[in-house]
Amino acid sequence: MNLTHIEHIGIAVKNLDATIRFYEEVLNLKCYAVEEVADQKVRTAFFQIGQTKIELLETTSPDGPIGKFIEKRGEGIHHIAFASENLNQSLIELQKKQINLIDDKPRKGAEGFNIAFLHPKDTSGVLIELCEKPE
Amino acid sequence: MNLTHIEHIGIAVKNLDATIRFYEEVLNLKCYAVEEVADQKVRTAFFQIGQTKIELLETTSPDGPIGKFIEKRGEGIHHIAFASENLNQSLIELQKKQINLIDDKPRKGAEGFNIAFLHPKDTSGVLIELCEKPE
Repeated sequence: MNLTHIEHIGIAVKNLDATIRFYEEVLNLKCYAVEEVADQKVRTAFFQIGQTKIELLETTSPDGPIGKFIEKRGEGIHHIAFASENLNQSLIELQKKQINLIDDKPRKGAEGFNIAFLHPKDTSGVLIELCEKPE
Repeated sequence: MNLTHIEHIGIAVKNLDATIRFYEEVLNLKCYAVEEVADQKVRTAFFQIGQTKIELLETTSPDGPIGKFIEKRGEGIHHIAFASENLNQSLIELQKKQINLIDDKPRKGAEGFNIAFLHPKDTSGVLIELCEKPE
């Protein structure tokens, strides 16, 4: 397991455009992309700060994962994503240690990354994503 | 406002020692310090990954902020801290923009940092800390 940095922090928001304004006008960060990930029923906005991205997530449907999260817990931080140097190998190691995975194989996430989520019941309540930039 | 990177991510946990083991043995990160911050009624553990620290927070009293957070929301991500190049100036700018602050002046946090929290009602539900390493 070789995790190098926090690749992004995912934040569930009700109103993407209003929250983009807060990050731009108040925190002085620059939104460099807005992308819809149909598979996850979200519209996302990205900001880079140092090594890390802030990824704002607005649901496109009440029954999407972000819609359900906000209904249950309100707006707030949804997940943190660690950059892995070898995602396939990391998932094999986690399975050997009997860590519950939401994704036992990498799938495609925003920006073309290969991603996989660990189950929060094994991670002190934090939804942890591992991700790897494709070659 | 000049924010340079994510300085740390604060995570509220019920059992600090068990969670340290998860971050060390499963995620292969190294706990380099455990510190009690009496003022905040927490015991904290630190891990460095790239530019960012993971700061695990265990309450030392049920009526501390982390104890109350866990009672209300369960374990999970508590706050994110952005590194500011000039914290005093950042707080002045935020007040000019009528952003509600929990701390209108810097106070001392873990590791000797000067810190201040924004009120989550103005930040889409995310508890945001700004911090600056002292000279």
